[in-house]
Amino acid sequence: MTLTADITPVLDTIDADLPQALERLMALLRIPSISTDPAYKADCARAADWLVAELTDLGFTASTRATPGHPMVVARHEAPGKHILFYGHYDVQPVDPLSLWDRDPFDPEIQETPKGKVIRARGASDDKGQLMTFLEACRAYKAVTGSLPGNLTIFLEGEEESGSPSLVPFMQENAPELSADLALICDTGLFADKQPAIVTMLRGLLGEEITLKGPNKDLHSGMYGGAAINPIRVLSRIIAGLHDDSGRITVPGFYDGVEELSEDMRAQWQALAFDHAHFLGEVGLSVPAGEQDRTPLEMIWSRPTCEVNGIWGGYTGDGFKTVLPSEAHAKISFRLVPGQNPDAIREAFRAQITAQLPADCSVSFHGHGASRAGQMSVTDPAFEAARGALSEEWGLPAAFVGCGGSIPIAGHFKTVLNMDAMLIGFGKDDDQIHSPNEKYDVESFHKGIRSWARVLNRIAG
Amino acid sequence: MTLTADITPVLDTIDADLPQALERLMALLRIPSISTDPAYKADCARAADWLVAELTDLGFTASTRATPGHPMVVARHEAPGKHILFYGHYDVQPVDPLSLWDRDPFDPEIQETPKGKVIRARGASDDKGQLMTFLEACRAYKAVTGSLPGNLTIFLEGEEESGSPSLVPFMQENAPELSADLALICDTGLFADKQPAIVTMLRGLLGEEITLKGPNKDLHSGMYGGAAINPIRVLSRIIAGLHDDSGRITVPGFYDGVEELSEDMRAQWQALAFDHAHFLGEVGLSVPAGEQDRTPLEMIWSRPTCEVNGIWGGYTGDGFKTVLPSEAHAKISFRLVPGQNPDAIREAFRAQITAQLPADCSVSFHGHGASRAGQMSVTDPAFEAARGALSEEWGLPAAFVGCGGSIPIAGHFKTVLNMDAMLIGFGKDDDQIHSPNEKYDVESFHKGIRSWARVLNRIAG
Repeated sequence: MTLTADITPVLDTIDADLPQALERLMALLRIPSISTDPAYKADCARAADWLVAELTDLGFTASTRATPGHPMVVARHEAPGKHILFYGHYDVQPVDPLSLWDRDPFDPEIQETPKGKVIRARGASDDKGQLMTFLEACRAYKAVTGSLPGNLTIFLEGEEESGSPSLVPFMQENAPELSADLALICDTGLFADKQPAIVTMLRGLLGEEITLKGPNKDLHSGMYGGAAINPIRVLSRIIAGLHDDSGRITVPGFYDGVEELSEDMRAQWQALAFDHAHFLGEVGLSVPAGEQDRTPLEMIWSRPTCEVNGIWGGYTGDGFKTVLPSEAHAKISFRLVPGQNPDAIREAFRAQITAQLPADCSVSFHGHGASRAGQMSVTDPAFEAARGALSEEWGLPAAFVGCGGSIPIAGHFKTVLNMDAMLIGFGKDDDQIHSPNEKYDVESFHKGIRSWARVLNRIAG
Repeated sequence: MTLTADITPVLDTIDADLPQALERLMALLRIPSISTDPAYKADCARAADWLVAELTDLGFTASTRATPGHPMVVARHEAPGKHILFYGHYDVQPVDPLSLWDRDPFDPEIQETPKGKVIRARGASDDKGQLMTFLEACRAYKAVTGSLPGNLTIFLEGEEESGSPSLVPFMQENAPELSADLALICDTGLFADKQPAIVTMLRGLLGEEITLKGPNKDLHSGMYGGAAINPIRVLSRIIAGLHDDSGRITVPGFYDGVEELSEDMRAQWQALAFDHAHFLGEVGLSVPAGEQDRTPLEMIWSRPTCEVNGIWGGYTGDGFKTVLPSEAHAKISFRLVPGQNPDAIREAFRAQITAQLPADCSVSFHGHGASRAGQMSVTDPAFEAARGALSEEWGLPAAFVGCGGSIPIAGHFKTVLNMDAMLIGFGKDDDQIHSPNEKYDVESFHKGIRSWARVLNRIAG
């Protein structure tokens, strides 16, 4: 079933209304809603109020909801059919260093560039431009059909760029209201800047900090060198042993529960023709350095990793000091994939390290958080339906893709509200999110609105 | 041949004169000759002048010699027989943190302690107390025999604690005057705080700093983790591979030229009954961690080492950052023993690292100085003679020992003046040199003077 038998008038309305839609986006972009800086607290509230007014104007029952931090925006339109919740965030990153911006980050402008028109402003892509694609799709439906497209909740956060401290408590307190049948999240990007994609796998993260102690104080290597154990050497051996020669991680039981890609997913990823030479070449590399029997996309999307994020010990200043240090430290993290249990891996990792310690060496561990990987239920027909809609709009097959990093909101929807999420976004790699001169392509905005119209037509109602 | 058939009157004079000798030492200790701090430049000059006056009073032809830094003191007494040069240094370490001193570091005092009387002041042990043992031995000879003990040069430096920048140029410019048959250096300690020792082996030192580069910038481990090479991992593998499982160093050719201990030296070291449990226990360790087929004394005196003195890379601050770093660094040093060529080892080390680099990883090296090990010609009969003299004084057999660290002056005497050096000193492990509350045992001072009287009687003249 679809919302409307003929989507053409909705799409035509979107096309015709684009200048006004851009004006509305620019009005939102003019509000400097930097959530992490208390100086902008009133601006964050102003952005929330602006959105409530927009949503009310569209026919939603909308309000701001106070939190210990910045307000949430919740808007509801009750209707028959599948209850769909849309998530976005109205807060933005800080702008410093301001000197690297070509213009005032909160004075948005449509600019012509060699690659096409862009909207230049802080938040243009992350996430004001993206969240407005959904609101504008709703607006077009309202204009053409007289009503909003289905049974909808809009849920907009104002603390995403400052760690979302109020999010989980708010979701817990308002679970009945927020528990929908499916969540839509618009905070991701196109694949390779052109191909529509739905993120269905998100890696989890496990962090560990280890401190090895040898002698009870720093020693002089002339006096003790040769007889005293050096914790940097011990740490190096431990780190060197975390991967075998083929690139596999040696923590016992690490791969327990890790499943191979389905044939369908493997075929989709192969069809993406990922240009790993370009991906690595951009950062000065040429050879995929992970498990040697895996493709580059598997390495970054569907295979777990172990990385040393930091290491330190002994004398690290200028010149030379022949110290034999008392301690050595490392920060190590694991990217996890579906099926892996972070707690079990933490325990196995700690046991593995402890078992390797030589005499006179002790270790202490400090855990830095653990989140499971996310795996969306792509068997829900909405996923295939959305894929078809996106393929139609972009003229390229949409793909279910992975995401090497973590997107906490998707996990929270699953764990707090037991709700799967469909992550669809239209950002490009050169959007400069979190950096000076952030932009959002007008094409991303325009086709993003059209994409939601098509997706909603297939999955809502 | 000896200086005097009966040394007893000399020793008796030393005993009787001890209170006056302590007064003279305290006069020198009152001069704050901190060489590294320009604020004490005049004090350094004053200490040099004080010593020239003392030496002149003893019958030497003495003078200060200007250098670009602090003055040298050179004193000469020509006589028949073997030309012996004595070296010490009149400058001292800085005193900070002053708050940790129990009294003014430059207001010396004789204090009673549970372990006996000590002279408490900066420089009491390092090196004013030690150098004065030799001058007082000369004084006693002069008092008893009417002349100084042999064909002597006294050479006192004022920049030892600040890297001796003027030393080698001065030695080169004054080589004819300073080239004696044998050098005596009083800047070391007793073995195990009680047994007289002559240092005959000094380890050399080779320093290398390595920087590994992978990606051309720090990457996000969510986006690149699994596909991008991590230079910390590469560095850890390299460091882990520098030693094999038995503790031997794997740099090709590293042990070329390294000789086994002579049977005589091995017997002396065994007789020392080195308490390695105590040595390691003091710093919280229990197991000698070096080459497993070597004794602890070999590990620290006669075997070469490779140590990581510092390591750093990635994020090392509080909390966690899932960075995949662009660079990783380590400071690595080798303690070298006689027979090893530092230049050849540096080259082999660099080649070994370079050969291990995986794709997309580059290395740069920064050398930090190289000094060969020192090996004294113990076949010179003066060494055995001094050993006999020291054994007599201390009632325990004196031993030829090694020194794990480097004592640059001994190397300079060899390379610049082609002169062997006999390193004899009376410091104890708890003298707190370079630390607050430095002290020198009155016993070290008293028996030190008597030791030089006995040694000179056997080797001078």
